[in-house]
Formats: sequence, structure tokens, C-alpha cells
Amino acid sequence: MLTDAQRDRLEVVLVSPRNPLNIGAVARAMANFGFARMTVVAPYTPHWREARSAVGAPELLQNASEHAALGEAVADCTLVLGTATLTHRKPGQKVVRLPDLAPLVRREIERGGRVALVFGPEKHGLTRQDLSYCHLLVEIPTASRQPSMNLGQAAAVCLYEIDSRVFMAEGPGEEHRPEAAADAGPAAASSKLELLAGVVERTMVAANYSPASMREANRRDLRLLLRRLAPTERDARRILGLFRRILWRLER
Amino acid sequence: MLTDAQRDRLEVVLVSPRNPLNIGAVARAMANFGFARMTVVAPYTPHWREARSAVGAPELLQNASEHAALGEAVADCTLVLGTATLTHRKPGQKVVRLPDLAPLVRREIERGGRVALVFGPEKHGLTRQDLSYCHLLVEIPTASRQPSMNLGQAAAVCLYEIDSRVFMAEGPGEEHRPEAAADAGPAAASSKLELLAGVVERTMVAANYSPASMREANRRDLRLLLRRLAPTERDARRILGLFRRILWRLER
Repeated sequence: MLTDAQRDRLEVVLVSPRNPLNIGAVARAMANFGFARMTVVAPYTPHWREARSAVGAPELLQNASEHAALGEAVADCTLVLGTATLTHRKPGQKVVRLPDLAPLVRREIERGGRVALVFGPEKHGLTRQDLSYCHLLVEIPTASRQPSMNLGQAAAVCLYEIDSRVFMAEGPGEEHRPEAAADAGPAAASSKLELLAGVVERTMVAANYSPASMREANRRDLRLLLRRLAPTERDARRILGLFRRILWRLER
Repeated sequence: MLTDAQRDRLEVVLVSPRNPLNIGAVARAMANFGFARMTVVAPYTPHWREARSAVGAPELLQNASEHAALGEAVADCTLVLGTATLTHRKPGQKVVRLPDLAPLVRREIERGGRVALVFGPEKHGLTRQDLSYCHLLVEIPTASRQPSMNLGQAAAVCLYEIDSRVFMAEGPGEEHRPEAAADAGPAAASSKLELLAGVVERTMVAANYSPASMREANRRDLRLLLRRLAPTERDARRILGLFRRILWRLER
């Protein structure tokens, strides 16, 4: 069983939610499963904190933080999980089925990381831009005939799974074997990966590897690449040092 | 992985739901996780089939059956699971945590039984009378500070768990070992247990074991007892034969 302080290292992030009732329903599910940290990114309505559907969780909404962009919201997170219906999308990163997620979250929390569980807007889900900030996609295994879940219900299902199989579970997770304990330190936070992507991208342009017009697409691909690589904080610092050096040489 | 025909042996039963939005939300969650059979018992509003929140599941509502009482609704079910928040209640039957439920449901479906998952009214949950029809209580492990879930979210969580760990799971459940396969036949249906409870209760009165004024309390206790015993169809028939004989002797 993990501690309350460890619970605070799980963040629920809602990107551009439209219906305040859904925001309230997510808050209620968080309270039901003992999570307290909510972040709302670019909400449609300024009055989202007053959602009446947040039964038992009004303070949770009051204490929620608000950001203008997802990158900012997950800056200090070391494992960013995007939730998605995968029917029409070819994801750029690894997809994990929700029933298989627990060991990954557990390992990240136990080694001192911060986990973000990100939900997209009700109608369209997360954009490609949003997805580029995610290390992994979490798929709730729904029926192919009716895959799309209500936001409040999707959040309840994910938080139930994470609470009962990570935070309330007795022993260590399946992947938490002695070898895994000999870890190379905490993963790099999203803000560090973003810094790294920026320097690498500038390097690509400076080296005439890629034209400046491709900048945005490159940035997205780099974000995905770095999250697949999942460097530790120390490794990210090293790679950053190297690229800064290269860039300095190229731009001189 | 179990078959579609086996899926039809899971029934979702809503007892006196008040808010049609919640009925719709349950229908949506059922469609999301591939279940089709809904039963509504003594609904508050006659127009519950038109719930607009049943995104992607209007036919499911059209095909749902309606009953006046829970006993009638679960008459042909062999495993009746009541969902409950257990904060203030001392249950009369065994309580299973939702994360531990899968092997029990799997075994029942595999041996040809019918499973009912019963949800009570939004405010008060299932009554003692309702609970007496349940073989087991299922507890969704929620936080003690905010245990009470929204009906649509509770249904989504239960159906996710049952779908992913019973119907979509690869291998046989934990409890499905070779010994368990040498089973004594299918469990007795609820209607058979009810018949048995009635005959035993009449026997108690006829034998002056218990006054007729205790009839209702006795009936409840008997229901619970029989569900704890969980006789097979064949055993139930035998016990019934015995009690009928005794009763005939006593009332002669």
C-alpha cells in the first residue's frame, strides 16, 4: 500500500473540457478513489470551478490549478499518460491497455516520479499536438461498436484501476523485481525533455538537416522520440549538454 | 476469452432509479463494455426508456425489461450480486471487493449460470429486502471520506472490471482449476431458492417454531441463508422435496 504523499504524485489533467458537469463528475470520481490533484488546461467556461455535479468534491475543484497549455501543465511530470480511443488514430507512441497499466505507474511513483493522467475534450479527444507530450497512451478496452466513453465514466474507470491495483495493492507490482530497483535514477521531467527537444530542433535547422518550415512537425516527432527513449534526469542533462555544444559550434 | 452468448448471461439490474440521466449513463457504459441486457425494477418515471444520455445505446434501453419487484427480475439468475456502500451497513452475506470478483463471475458463467449485477436507488442504495435476494455483496473500494459514487460511474467501474478480467481475459480465472471443473452441476436459480424459502418458512410456522408475525423477517433470513449455502439446482430440488413432505405432514 502506498502513502498519501505518493497519492499526491498522481495528477488528473483535463484538456479543454466543455461541459462543467463532466468536470464535476471527474472531481467526484477523484474524491471517491482518494486523489486530490486536478489540473484544467484551457477550459471553455471560466466558471468550471462551480460544477454542481462535484458531489463531495467542491474543494478539490477550488484547489485545482489552471494552465493555458498542456506542456505547461505537465512540466514537472515524469510520466505523462494520454487517454485515447484508438479507433481512427495511429498513435506515435506505445499503447498500454488499462488493465496492464498498474506496474508502470507503480514503478514511476516508487522511484519518486510524478504521473499525469490526461483526458482530452469530450468530442474530439487529444490533438496530435497534445499527444506529443505523452510518454504512453492508455487505452480503455471498450467495445468496437461503441468505443467512446463519457468523460466522467472514463475517469472513474481509470482511477478505480490505478487506485485498486497501484495504491491499494498489497505487494509490489509485477515489474518491481530486485533488478528494477537498481534504477538509474528518476526519469527526466517533461520540462527537461521539452528543453532538450528545442535544442535538438534548433540543431537540426542549424545543421541544414531540416528546413525551418518543418519546425513544428519536427518538434512533435522529437517530443515523441524523447518520450519513447524516456531518459533519466541525469541522462537528459548529458544529452542536453552535448547538443548545446553542437549548436554553439554550428551557429558560431 | 468468452463468447457473445456468454455475455448475454450477465444482466444489469437497476432498482428504482430516480434520474433518467443515470439510467442512460448505465446504458452507455454497458454498450462501451459490450453488455446488452438491462432490467429496470420499479422505475420512478414511466419515460425512462427515452434517456438522452444513453449515447450509442438507445436500442439497449428499448430492449430492456421492466419488473415490479427485484425477486421477479432475478428469478432465473443463479448468482445475484448486490452493489453497496458498506459504510453504515452490516451485511447479511459475504462481501467481495470488486478487484477480487472476476473468478467468481467467471466460474458461474462457465458452468452455465446467469449473473445479475444489481444497483440500488441513487440516494439510499438497496433495502434490506432487496439485499436478501443477493448471494454476495460487491464493494467498490472507495475512499472512506467520500465513499458514495454516482450511479453511472459505479456501473462503468463494475462493467470495466468484469469485461476486462472475465470476458476479455485470456486464460481461465484463478479459481478455475481442474478440481473446480468436477462441479456438481449448475447453481439453483433465484426462483428455485425463493420457492424453497417459502416452503421452509411455512414449515417453521406450521411446526410452531416461529410465530406468523415473524414471517417477513424469517423470509429475509432464509433467503440469505440459502444464498450462503448456494445449493446446486439438483440439491435445491432435493431439499424442496424434503420440506414439502415435512410440511404436508405438519399441516395435515
